Amino acid sequence: LKKTQFVYRNSKDPCSIDSVNKRVDWLEEVTGVKIQSIRNAYQKSETFNGVELRGNIENLIGVVQIPVGVAGPLKVNGKHAKGTFYVPLATTEGAIVESYMRGMWVLTKAGGVTARVLKDIMHISPSFTLPSLTQAIEFVEWVKAHFKTLKAHAESTTEHGVLLRIEPQVAGSKVFLKFIYSTKDAMGLNMVNISVDHVCKFISQHWDDLPYYLRVNYSGDKKVSAANFINGYGKEVAVECIIPHKIVTRFLGTTPEEMVKYFQVSLIGTMRAGIVGINAHYANGLAAIFIACGQDVAQITSSAVGYTHYEVTPEGDLKVEATLPNLLLGTIGGGTALPTQKECLQIMGCSGKGKSKKFAEIVASCLLAGEISICAALSNGTFVNIHKHKHKFTKYK
Amino acid sequence: LKKTQFVYRNSKDPCSIDSVNKRVDWLEEVTGVKIQSIRNAYQKSETFNGVELRGNIENLIGVVQIPVGVAGPLKVNGKHAKGTFYVPLATTEGAIVESYMRGMWVLTKAGGVTARVLKDIMHISPSFTLPSLTQAIEFVEWVKAHFKTLKAHAESTTEHGVLLRIEPQVAGSKVFLKFIYSTKDAMGLNMVNISVDHVCKFISQHWDDLPYYLRVNYSGDKKVSAANFINGYGKEVAVECIIPHKIVTRFLGTTPEEMVKYFQVSLIGTMRAGIVGINAHYANGLAAIFIACGQDVAQITSSAVGYTHYEVTPEGDLKVEATLPNLLLGTIGGGTALPTQKECLQIMGCSGKGKSKKFAEIVASCLLAGEISICAALSNGTFVNIHKHKHKFTKYK
Amino acid sequence: LKKTQFVYRNSKDPCSIDSVNKRVDWLEEVTGVKIQSIRNAYQKSETFNGVELRGNIENLIGVVQIPVGVAGPLKVNGKHAKGTFYVPLATTEGAIVESYMRGMWVLTKAGGVTARVLKDIMHISPSFTLPSLTQAIEFVEWVKAHFKTLKAHAESTTEHGVLLRIEPQVAGSKVFLKFIYSTKDAMGLNMVNISVDHVCKFISQHWDDLPYYLRVNYSGDKKVSAANFINGYGKEVAVECIIPHKIVTRFLGTTPEEMVKYFQVSLIGTMRAGIVGINAHYANGLAAIFIACGQDVAQITSSAVGYTHYEVTPEGDLKVEATLPNLLLGTIGGGTALPTQKECLQIMGCSGKGKSKKFAEIVASCLLAGEISICAALSNGTFVNIHKHKHKFTKYK
Amino acid sequence: LKKTQFVYRNSKDPCSIDSVNKRVDWLEEVTGVKIQSIRNAYQKSETFNGVELRGNIENLIGVVQIPVGVAGPLKVNGKHAKGTFYVPLATTEGAIVESYMRGMWVLTKAGGVTARVLKDIMHISPSFTLPSLTQAIEFVEWVKAHFKTLKAHAESTTEHGVLLRIEPQVAGSKVFLKFIYSTKDAMGLNMVNISVDHVCKFISQHWDDLPYYLRVNYSGDKKVSAANFINGYGKEVAVECIIPHKIVTRFLGTTPEEMVKYFQVSLIGTMRAGIVGINAHYANGLAAIFIACGQDVAQITSSAVGYTHYEVTPEGDLKVEATLPNLLLGTIGGGTALPTQKECLQIMGCSGKGKSKKFAEIVASCLLAGEISICAALSNGTFVNIHKHKHKFTKYK
Repeated sequence: LKKTQFVYRNSKDPCSIDSVNKRVDWLEEVTGVKIQSIRNAYQKSETFNGVELRGNIENLIGVVQIPVGVAGPLKVNGKHAKGTFYVPLATTEGAIVESYMRGMWVLTKAGGVTARVLKDIMHISPSFTLPSLTQAIEFVEWVKAHFKTLKAHAESTTEHGVLLRIEPQVAGSKVFLKFIYSTKDAMGLNMVNISVDHVCKFISQHWDDLPYYLRVNYSGDKKVSAANFINGYGKEVAVECIIPHKIVTRFLGTTPEEMVKYFQVSLIGTMRAGIVGINAHYANGLAAIFIACGQDVAQITSSAVGYTHYEVTPEGDLKVEATLPNLLLGTIGGGTALPTQKECLQIMGCSGKGKSKKFAEIVASCLLAGEISICAALSNGTFVNIHKHKHKFTKYK
Repeated sequence: LKKTQFVYRNSKDPCSIDSVNKRVDWLEEVTGVKIQSIRNAYQKSETFNGVELRGNIENLIGVVQIPVGVAGPLKVNGKHAKGTFYVPLATTEGAIVESYMRGMWVLTKAGGVTARVLKDIMHISPSFTLPSLTQAIEFVEWVKAHFKTLKAHAESTTEHGVLLRIEPQVAGSKVFLKFIYSTKDAMGLNMVNISVDHVCKFISQHWDDLPYYLRVNYSGDKKVSAANFINGYGKEVAVECIIPHKIVTRFLGTTPEEMVKYFQVSLIGTMRAGIVGINAHYANGLAAIFIACGQDVAQITSSAVGYTHYEVTPEGDLKVEATLPNLLLGTIGGGTALPTQKECLQIMGCSGKGKSKKFAEIVASCLLAGEISICAALSNGTFVNIHKHKHKFTKYK
Repeated sequence: LKKTQFVYRNSKDPCSIDSVNKRVDWLEEVTGVKIQSIRNAYQKSETFNGVELRGNIENLIGVVQIPVGVAGPLKVNGKHAKGTFYVPLATTEGAIVESYMRGMWVLTKAGGVTARVLKDIMHISPSFTLPSLTQAIEFVEWVKAHFKTLKAHAESTTEHGVLLRIEPQVAGSKVFLKFIYSTKDAMGLNMVNISVDHVCKFISQHWDDLPYYLRVNYSGDKKVSAANFINGYGKEVAVECIIPHKIVTRFLGTTPEEMVKYFQVSLIGTMRAGIVGINAHYANGLAAIFIACGQDVAQITSSAVGYTHYEVTPEGDLKVEATLPNLLLGTIGGGTALPTQKECLQIMGCSGKGKSKKFAEIVASCLLAGEISICAALSNGTFVNIHKHKHKFTKYK
Repeated sequence: LKKTQFVYRNSKDPCSIDSVNKRVDWLEEVTGVKIQSIRNAYQKSETFNGVELRGNIENLIGVVQIPVGVAGPLKVNGKHAKGTFYVPLATTEGAIVESYMRGMWVLTKAGGVTARVLKDIMHISPSFTLPSLTQAIEFVEWVKAHFKTLKAHAESTTEHGVLLRIEPQVAGSKVFLKFIYSTKDAMGLNMVNISVDHVCKFISQHWDDLPYYLRVNYSGDKKVSAANFINGYGKEVAVECIIPHKIVTRFLGTTPEEMVKYFQVSLIGTMRAGIVGINAHYANGLAAIFIACGQDVAQITSSAVGYTHYEVTPEGDLKVEATLPNLLLGTIGGGTALPTQKECLQIMGCSGKGKSKKFAEIVASCLLAGEISICAALSNGTFVNIHKHKHKFTKYK
């Protein structure tokens, strides 16, 4: 490898304008590509004055700009989120903001979305390799008997994390220990990694340097996992709304009956395709909110599962529900303190400590809006038109 | 709903500085939040001169800034991607760029990644509701007999899309028709939506206004779908590299045997958790590349499946492979033409027509880099240290 | 190991009365258990005169007796099964025969079940290990180019099997080749094993003794496999019936609306539990028929998947459908020629050549009967009563 | 429907020789088929003297005869099963008994199988439909607060069943309550159905006739369910054995390394096919034991999941493990008291009360034997030969 191939590094002040310029200059040289916009987007926006990015990125060359649109009003009747909200959505896909906004409008007209956080946990599951099955069983007994000690060790590395319980699983002569935490307002992945690694070291020493692996996919981070879908990972949030018949016909251009009929067929399609749960496009809303709000965007792979449900009430209205068992989000840590991202959280009153459940209730309500909007368009055959003419705004009046 | 609750709209020039300012002013008023950074990030960067955003977003209030780091060098021996590349990664999660770069370094030292696109298709599957099972079977026969006509109709709406075949599935008295396309350099979701809606209208008319739904999840867009994992959706890409034993020990701090041993345990964890395929963190690399390169970020939910594989060769070296059956990406359309995003594609020589397979080969190679990097850190117990000290760069020399 | 521990063997005439008696004597001695019934059930029934069991079992000690009940009448409007049938069900679980019979009665009253075989294939998928990804791709090209030769080799070992096509799948440097056959009236597992092993030997020789494994679970025999559920394995059979409202109320004690309402909730339960497809208890009917009819009973693990569907027609009647994509059964081979089993097939006119599709249509119709029967009992809360008083017959008059 | 179409019924003594003869006569008449063997197999075997079948079957016409072979010796070092056992296998598929016996031989030579029951539960999950999400949450709180009362009600219907806990799951405005029992030596499905129906009636009354459904697939009976695979259903049993290198080479005709190499490829095949867990053919052994021992054979669909694991020890020996999380079996109830079935249980010392865990340990050990036997044959290419010449016994000496 030639010297020119190494990325320009400067360990002292890697994200300074100067470092970034040198790095971009180098990159322009090795690639022969003019890199103007990425550079300008970082240096000319006046938003990064005094902001330290070194905890968020390495080898910085600038920023990409993702357009943000605002959708709303969205009325949420949550336990934590109470009121009318406007949701910032960062996307480059036309019609997304418009589609979610239509759903929000309808839900708000219908009186708003009931929203509740049912669960709130984070876990990772190290594996320990014992010499035999019988010793694996002994090991599990020991872990159960020493929970208090292990809890103390685990929590010594974290201010906010609380170790709720340890669920052991014997797998031949391996043992998986699921360490389940409450992580408060952080998404908490790093926090639990550090905490569990600490307690694993303690366990390992106690057991004659028993070998362990910190993560072996048993807690399934950043993947759809049946175990997490069933038992929880992150926040489990449920939302619900009853939409009067005439609102469905007037603003969604279809009927409750047609929506349910479409839903029944999509259930068959979903099952036949081997999909976990059922939803139309949680991923679109999640990606847009997560990018806007400084979340770990890779977590939409875990978060975008759940099940939407439609039924016609005895009164002929449309009852819509959604349950999202694996919402992974936070209002502190990660990218939540970056200037534009922080403002996006602030727009919803969700920046900083004490806000993660509120944020979760708004996110789930927003996803419900997306579901009814696309389901309506698919049930009445207007889906393609909406996407074709995505720049022509509809008036909801 | 009060008048002030409506989002400020201006259908004539919705993304102009003036429209955006009025909209942000309104949003500041209804929320009471100062929105300075989002506004500045859009208006002061000098990157949007003359750029029309109205096809990409509605209700624009500005942009969020996602830091971009560069990782490389990454040598790819593809059919389409040949040479040494630098990959822009947009993320707010520390250590991601560093972790992928370490893997790239190792793969490059080992001679580079063999990469091949095995499949390249896009599909959607409308459902038709027939009165009975026997009529459903007749309908399928008719569709098979009229493929040429249907193909002509389908392709009349698109310049680049080619309808390859239609795969019917009888489900009781419903019929799902999987329309499978080649979409060239576009990811192609909108293209196939429009094309298939057009041909469905034709079919419906021919069959006495037979009701149909354009999408019923049978093609599983933006979800992990067993059907797509097995049969393909988007680009299927395979990558491979043999890493000499001494490179593994020197630069990854572990051995091929230890890597494989870790992999075996993670296979048990993966299966026990009910995860489709096996990988460590495709989602991280995908999210970072997709954000940087103007992709439909929601598609990482579909794309982040596959299987990584490790084995020790008879010579004691490490053989690593990854197969990604559902890569959904494009080099035209979506956000690929936005200023910062376009530059990110250009850095890899992947902007515009004729580049999507090259892009796919680089992406898959990059994901392989991420896999070996994290697997090494988990196999030798250094995973947490890397994340704790994420701003301290290691020297690879 | 002591000599007495070895099972008594006699290679000349292992299933003769004399051999069996010696073996049972030995077993009585080593276990201290009196083995009278198993012995008598074999030797005193007068059914095995001249029947050679050595192809069906090793180390024979006698037979177990499974009670057989008959359920019917079941009217089937199939392509192959036309008329009114009585189905033998072998089970030791009370209420099974009764429950299926109730369903059959209702379906017959409603005019009978429309039944169709949609697909009929059998496959196994050997794996070949190539040195590299690029050679794996070359190998696939070679296989595609030599299909005719391979087909000739494959079919040289079998009188009835027809190799329809080979579907290759590159998985890193491994290649899976799915050899898809039509196996006529045999279930065909042994037939395709032998045929594919033969052609694999040919391929291997042509490629310098390329190593291969005959079966690596890619064709998923005797397991639920998403791939088989989606793409087929064995016979895919669809059945359908419209049951008039008054028949539902009179004979099922519930209404079409209540049945559908129950079905909706069970869909949520099914999805949330991570089950492939949806059915109530295909496995019960399948086990009973497969035991009665000399089928490979282990195949119910593959066969008992599919999806039942209920809807209310515009006229207020109940439309019920079931699709079973993986029915694995045969009318020749296996245990189909044993005396009691052969009679069970004969009762349905399904013994011997040319009958497997007829058998499949009857089986699927029978399973539909079981579905509506249990669904009715669960929808109206009588499920437990039926099981409590399982010996009290209801009169359907 | 004509009168002759009705199955001959006799509610007084439905399984008497006389009733059966009249029923068979009728069936011969309506079908035109001579039914001699089924009749004789029942009436001439001298095994049913005084045996009452009316709790096991309706519409009895006789019995089918399934050949039983014996396999062993199988040494089990369990907690409940200690010693050397012979396992009765009822099948009509040649080579099954032989294949399992070969594995048993090898395991016994290696010192026997370590076996442990890790879990032992049975559950069903009724659903309750509340008017709204918030009331669903209230309902769950009420259930939690009244566990003692509910437990008393539940256990009032059963002598042996113990209600361990209730796990609630809110799904929109529905609530699933998983009632988890210990059912002692019975498989327990009927027991928990009756018990839970009783307590549901109590709950329903307390909540103003709140509608409920007893079973909605959330507990996934007689299906592969990810939830049950992960969280347990029936007995979870783990087994393990270290097989010395020279035993592998001498009696399995392969090496530990070759076995593991094959296993690695089959893992890829398994994942790619979308199968839950990994095993080669649990279903074969399970079907044969379940038929022989009077089990609910349909339960093999649930039971035949788990994961087999192979590794080479540092000493070069072969370590084999299997974990079966959903074994559903019993030693009382169902068909366990029928004459031939009871003898099969007695042969293993597993008939009656206090024996179900012993039985489970033997069953899992037997399945492990089947796994190593087929894996050896697939790893060394002899699989087809074994099946071709299935009547030619190998000598293990």
